[in-house]
Amino acid sequence: MSLYSETFYSNEINQLFSNRSVITNMLTAEATLAKAQAELGLIPVEAAEIIEFSCNVEYIDIDKLITDIKLGGNAAIPLVQQLTKVIKNSNFEASKYVHFGATSQDIIDTASILSIKEVISWMEDKLITLEQALLNITKKHQNTIMIGRTLMQQARPITFGLKTANWLESITRSKLRLQTVKTDVLQIQLSGAVGSGNNNITDEVQIKFAEYLNLRNASLWQSQRDDLNEFASVLGILSGSLGKIAKDISLMMQTEVGEAFEGAQEGKGGSSTMPHKRNPVTCALILSNSTRTPGLVSTMLSSMIQEHERSAGYWHAEWETLTQLIGLTCGSLEKSIDLIENLEVETERMLQNIEITNGLIYAEKVAFALSSTLGKMQAHEAIKKACKLSISTGKHLKQIIIETHTEIDNIDELFQPENAIGNSIKWVEKIIYRYS
Amino acid sequence: MSLYSETFYSNEINQLFSNRSVITNMLTAEATLAKAQAELGLIPVEAAEIIEFSCNVEYIDIDKLITDIKLGGNAAIPLVQQLTKVIKNSNFEASKYVHFGATSQDIIDTASILSIKEVISWMEDKLITLEQALLNITKKHQNTIMIGRTLMQQARPITFGLKTANWLESITRSKLRLQTVKTDVLQIQLSGAVGSGNNNITDEVQIKFAEYLNLRNASLWQSQRDDLNEFASVLGILSGSLGKIAKDISLMMQTEVGEAFEGAQEGKGGSSTMPHKRNPVTCALILSNSTRTPGLVSTMLSSMIQEHERSAGYWHAEWETLTQLIGLTCGSLEKSIDLIENLEVETERMLQNIEITNGLIYAEKVAFALSSTLGKMQAHEAIKKACKLSISTGKHLKQIIIETHTEIDNIDELFQPENAIGNSIKWVEKIIYRYS
Amino acid sequence: MSLYSETFYSNEINQLFSNRSVITNMLTAEATLAKAQAELGLIPVEAAEIIEFSCNVEYIDIDKLITDIKLGGNAAIPLVQQLTKVIKNSNFEASKYVHFGATSQDIIDTASILSIKEVISWMEDKLITLEQALLNITKKHQNTIMIGRTLMQQARPITFGLKTANWLESITRSKLRLQTVKTDVLQIQLSGAVGSGNNNITDEVQIKFAEYLNLRNASLWQSQRDDLNEFASVLGILSGSLGKIAKDISLMMQTEVGEAFEGAQEGKGGSSTMPHKRNPVTCALILSNSTRTPGLVSTMLSSMIQEHERSAGYWHAEWETLTQLIGLTCGSLEKSIDLIENLEVETERMLQNIEITNGLIYAEKVAFALSSTLGKMQAHEAIKKACKLSISTGKHLKQIIIETHTEIDNIDELFQPENAIGNSIKWVEKIIYRYS
Amino acid sequence: MSLYSETFYSNEINQLFSNRSVITNMLTAEATLAKAQAELGLIPVEAAEIIEFSCNVEYIDIDKLITDIKLGGNAAIPLVQQLTKVIKNSNFEASKYVHFGATSQDIIDTASILSIKEVISWMEDKLITLEQALLNITKKHQNTIMIGRTLMQQARPITFGLKTANWLESITRSKLRLQTVKTDVLQIQLSGAVGSGNNNITDEVQIKFAEYLNLRNASLWQSQRDDLNEFASVLGILSGSLGKIAKDISLMMQTEVGEAFEGAQEGKGGSSTMPHKRNPVTCALILSNSTRTPGLVSTMLSSMIQEHERSAGYWHAEWETLTQLIGLTCGSLEKSIDLIENLEVETERMLQNIEITNGLIYAEKVAFALSSTLGKMQAHEAIKKACKLSISTGKHLKQIIIETHTEIDNIDELFQPENAIGNSIKWVEKIIYRYS
Repeated sequence: MSLYSETFYSNEINQLFSNRSVITNMLTAEATLAKAQAELGLIPVEAAEIIEFSCNVEYIDIDKLITDIKLGGNAAIPLVQQLTKVIKNSNFEASKYVHFGATSQDIIDTASILSIKEVISWMEDKLITLEQALLNITKKHQNTIMIGRTLMQQARPITFGLKTANWLESITRSKLRLQTVKTDVLQIQLSGAVGSGNNNITDEVQIKFAEYLNLRNASLWQSQRDDLNEFASVLGILSGSLGKIAKDISLMMQTEVGEAFEGAQEGKGGSSTMPHKRNPVTCALILSNSTRTPGLVSTMLSSMIQEHERSAGYWHAEWETLTQLIGLTCGSLEKSIDLIENLEVETERMLQNIEITNGLIYAEKVAFALSSTLGKMQAHEAIKKACKLSISTGKHLKQIIIETHTEIDNIDELFQPENAIGNSIKWVEKIIYRYS
Repeated sequence: MSLYSETFYSNEINQLFSNRSVITNMLTAEATLAKAQAELGLIPVEAAEIIEFSCNVEYIDIDKLITDIKLGGNAAIPLVQQLTKVIKNSNFEASKYVHFGATSQDIIDTASILSIKEVISWMEDKLITLEQALLNITKKHQNTIMIGRTLMQQARPITFGLKTANWLESITRSKLRLQTVKTDVLQIQLSGAVGSGNNNITDEVQIKFAEYLNLRNASLWQSQRDDLNEFASVLGILSGSLGKIAKDISLMMQTEVGEAFEGAQEGKGGSSTMPHKRNPVTCALILSNSTRTPGLVSTMLSSMIQEHERSAGYWHAEWETLTQLIGLTCGSLEKSIDLIENLEVETERMLQNIEITNGLIYAEKVAFALSSTLGKMQAHEAIKKACKLSISTGKHLKQIIIETHTEIDNIDELFQPENAIGNSIKWVEKIIYRYS
Repeated sequence: MSLYSETFYSNEINQLFSNRSVITNMLTAEATLAKAQAELGLIPVEAAEIIEFSCNVEYIDIDKLITDIKLGGNAAIPLVQQLTKVIKNSNFEASKYVHFGATSQDIIDTASILSIKEVISWMEDKLITLEQALLNITKKHQNTIMIGRTLMQQARPITFGLKTANWLESITRSKLRLQTVKTDVLQIQLSGAVGSGNNNITDEVQIKFAEYLNLRNASLWQSQRDDLNEFASVLGILSGSLGKIAKDISLMMQTEVGEAFEGAQEGKGGSSTMPHKRNPVTCALILSNSTRTPGLVSTMLSSMIQEHERSAGYWHAEWETLTQLIGLTCGSLEKSIDLIENLEVETERMLQNIEITNGLIYAEKVAFALSSTLGKMQAHEAIKKACKLSISTGKHLKQIIIETHTEIDNIDELFQPENAIGNSIKWVEKIIYRYS
Repeated sequence: MSLYSETFYSNEINQLFSNRSVITNMLTAEATLAKAQAELGLIPVEAAEIIEFSCNVEYIDIDKLITDIKLGGNAAIPLVQQLTKVIKNSNFEASKYVHFGATSQDIIDTASILSIKEVISWMEDKLITLEQALLNITKKHQNTIMIGRTLMQQARPITFGLKTANWLESITRSKLRLQTVKTDVLQIQLSGAVGSGNNNITDEVQIKFAEYLNLRNASLWQSQRDDLNEFASVLGILSGSLGKIAKDISLMMQTEVGEAFEGAQEGKGGSSTMPHKRNPVTCALILSNSTRTPGLVSTMLSSMIQEHERSAGYWHAEWETLTQLIGLTCGSLEKSIDLIENLEVETERMLQNIEITNGLIYAEKVAFALSSTLGKMQAHEAIKKACKLSISTGKHLKQIIIETHTEIDNIDELFQPENAIGNSIKWVEKIIYRYS
């Protein structure tokens, strides 16, 4: 267990990629192959039963397996050796039918897809939970006014609900992408040594094999890794969207901004020697993950250039890369749920922050109001002058306008943030409606 | 025009991203906005007409624009300035309604999507052409026997048609991915300074704007760049699949292999001083592109962490990155059509290459045949001995078996490649059938 | 000229990589080769003179060159063809000695190194300028107190000089790295078709060739690209260090922080409709560049796996990648000089920002003072309580302490920022001393 | 222990990054800090002794540590908590001086550098071993003639020694780079909460701390990560150079080429069912590693943009990334030694492969010989015709020339490979000489 196995990852996903789980999935592939072949009369039913019974991770010497992988270059070779030996000991005849007509890649790829199947199912659950948390926060803060920021500068007011609705929709789109990619990537790999099948790897065997594993009967993809990369991309994109949320929150948590905080938890983020600190620890970990996932997607894409019927290196490069990409993305997903469900929102502070420019954020609005009497050009010049005065004197722009332009009668309205948020509320309503 | 503008890219796509084209698309966005606002009574119809008329790249001083971009940090700011000035000269009143309620990003993103729309349309055409070329070559070589190779070693025979069918299906899947992403990414960006809209950027304006541009009325995506990254990923995956094809062909073109060649063309790939060389020039360029695209996708994904309502840097990082990713992928696509349509296939050589192991590739088959009389263990040992003898003496395995194991009566059959290709022909038939 | 040629890049560096400049460098390599060979009696002196005279970019049809590159896959092939034709027209005999014994890569790599030589020289100048600017700002703000921030939270006071001294030293280290890599990468490429030389590419020719070009007489590096990648890495690291500076400044420019601003310039960063905005435009462009450079370094590293004596694709992948990496890094360097030389520092605001936590940042200091009378445990508890009270009441911690712990007599000292900056001033003095 | 911990990595390096080793290094940092502070009279000597005694990994509950990391976001926080508790139990007074004046990053970065120090020492040993193996093979094959290949096409003969000498020199350059980076990166991190030091983190403490740890007394690098990235780049470049060697060997191992093979080992690379296969397993694993390292370097570079005095995410992104980059590069290094030391070179086959073009590779040489009598143009045309004839008839070019151009008297010489290898032998001699 790595030092950072809980820092960046999800425990449940770690478990899914434990050595035992990975080997179990490979054994499931072997057992299912035998079962399918027996069903079609290609191997004796008794042999299949013995194989199925023997495909148990308890019989595998994992340490020896780990050492032996480097000899043949993949995990299936020593696994089949160990498995065959186990079966030989109980039934010599049955041992002939282990891995019958299959190739290492059939077992490794299929086992990998079985893991991915569980990952996707886990992710779908978590995405729904995150969606709900984002929907809740959006509903709650539909009318919460805050400043909108562009290029990290205060621009004009929006609602916090508008910000979270944008987060929400990006997560929903990732959920939909996952549904699309699921129908592509959840497929068997079973096509024998060079991808051409053989007497024991036939259409019928493939169909049964797929059926038993509840996977799609695949196209040939031994060295065509586009579907796998589609999945990798979907992960990379989700990790990016989660990073964007964490980035926004970490910016809002700045001491000088103070508009939102990660939920307090005993020992979390705080500092006994610096009581004023509320470190965005969860955000930092999500951001760390989203810094790392692009390079992993890049490696997956680089690995697509697989030579002929099986690559010398590129296939191998996928194994740990994809596992890490999954691990980090799922870690971010789990952490984001915690982040959003427990987010502390400082609505008072949001309102205060809108005021720190002394009303300058309303300048354009005032100019527009003035233009009806002064004309656009003069209005613009007048406001420019007023803004400069506000900056140099520290006086609120509203006060300056009151003193210099008595002709405006709706001066209070012009400086009310709720009149400056555009269609924020209406648009968020529409979005919420779509989720109901 | 860069030195390598035809080397790695497609001329048509270069054209699509010329300064004039990009500016034209931005002007189209401005004109369409005015038209939509006039239609809804938000601005005078006459103003809109003048704006539309003035949105002409001929009126723009491109050199000045290039210099001015760095001041404001994006191309829309100086463009709107120049446009406003043009209009002011003809009609002062109309100039008030240029870029009315919009923000720079509305124009730049929408213009970018307009380019992408043309790119996707171009790609769809090319993908169909490439698909057809791959289907033709697959049909033609349905029965062409060659050796299958794993880890760059001869393994067992397959058909060349099986190899090309795999190429074909990967391209078809990319075509389908493009269709999916099209419905996501071809959307307007129109939501004003902080993404909240305003009195002049309303639902109705968005609907009209989208309708006129024949784009989807979008979700809010000012700083949610997942759809754009979905498109980037689809490009990256296609580039990888094309690289895989080029890699296979370049390996087959090796002097020692000689199974396929890029089509000859005056001055292409050859060398006057080395007449034996058939350089895989087109393959090399496609492979060069597929080496570069993963890093670009990675940059796009890294750019997703956009701060608040508009990022200070990440948005900017997308511009040239996406253009290059498009350019390289489209370049590879065009080159791949040329590559496949003109591929010279050396079927004779393919058959000869199957023989260079002196029949060792059939060893397993022979062992299987022997096992019925000798038992599996003895058969295996016998073949192992025979193989060693073949390697040390340079004698063909068949000859050795004939001399040592007279009991096999179908010896010729065992050593015929057409009996060793598994389901290659049947599976390719099925694939071809799906395309008919 | 690309739309963004001034946005992300430096004009001077753009010029260095113009088609004319690149071709000129290739012609210089050809001319120098002839000169070296003539000097050693391998070709007639007259021929060399004609070749040198003819190696003039004016004689080259660049458009045709661009079109022809894709046929042979590199720029040297059509260049040598055009050059030979030019010479043939004036002196048939001399034309025999063009590119004599050389290979395309000799010319392209050497020309590329000639460009890099100019780039390094340019960079050294700019790095010295940037160093000086950073040294100046460090000296000026040696005693300027500001808050130090970790995980984007206010932590404890430092000096602004300490921050800029750190920036400074990172730039100096990049300058030193450039000096180191210069001795590695500035080398000729001249080893003929397969890197083995020949009668006309001898040790003596290499020595002369290197001498005339003022480059190192190289190791063989036709497909060993480590030195080139060392240079690429140095660029990537510099781009990262510049990005770090830009990131800090963009954070300080936030409306809520307001501690530093990019120098004002007519039309730069501001917004007529949002007078309060001071967009960090230069920072955004530098950050955009540092977002893009890691992917380019990654591509360079991926391209190292070059097959045999010349790669089919990986060599090609370097060309534009390295040019872009240089372009973006140099762009950032130039922009950073502007950024630092014109930085507006708000020392008043820095002091104000230290106060926004109502003295909580001094809590640890106070606890330490109390512990001498109360004991460590009690002191810690007392302060914890006081801090909570400060947060809930909005009262300054100092006031609370005064009211509750009259035993402290140096209360004012404890809450003075200059007493909380650790060794900031001393350490910066030491750094400044090293530069004098 | 991960399933692939021996597949891609080195056992010794895995050990170096085990949880116990990492924690031990952190405890060493804590103990050394106390020792240094005691030496300077900042803390009681007795306290330091107790702290040193207690800094023992046996006292640490690693499972609890792993769980607690995510609360504070780094491993030092829970480690210091556990350590303090341990010490409190034995000596309350001493517990006050644990981690005295330090910050988490001081401990984590310093511990990380201690690991890197061991890594570099290990790498230096291995690089010397690999260098020696490459020097041996170069000496042995100084005169071994083989074909040189460009763009994966046979070009002209070289020696195998020339190829290996190029490999050798790239490794030596990496060794030198490692020596350079060693003086940069092997430095302490000790500067307190915001990098400004304090009363207990002074120059004198830093000097002692560095001295005891045998590290350089550093520049400030809390959020200036250029030195660390320099180290990462050196790893990335070495991994690339090793990948290049593995790529060449895997290409030479192709069944159709057969010029070199990985050393045989029981159960390695072979296949009982395909006796003709000699899978380049070690090459594949090295190539897999070199496919993955560029993305990791890219992530390191992306992480340089660290905010202010400590980053919220980028620092965290370094931890596992650098460990993996080290692990994969060291794994490749170890595997490369095995690869080169046991490489089986088929010199006979190399000679045979030179002949497969029926002498076409000598065409240029013959043309040159003919030109003295025929003139260059005619000679060229004559050879072109002869080559075409050779290709169409399958006759050896030499035979055709003999029949058609009786005027050449040194015809045998022209077709001897040893006369076509340029300066291969001489250049390799020079290289070998440099190593003696």
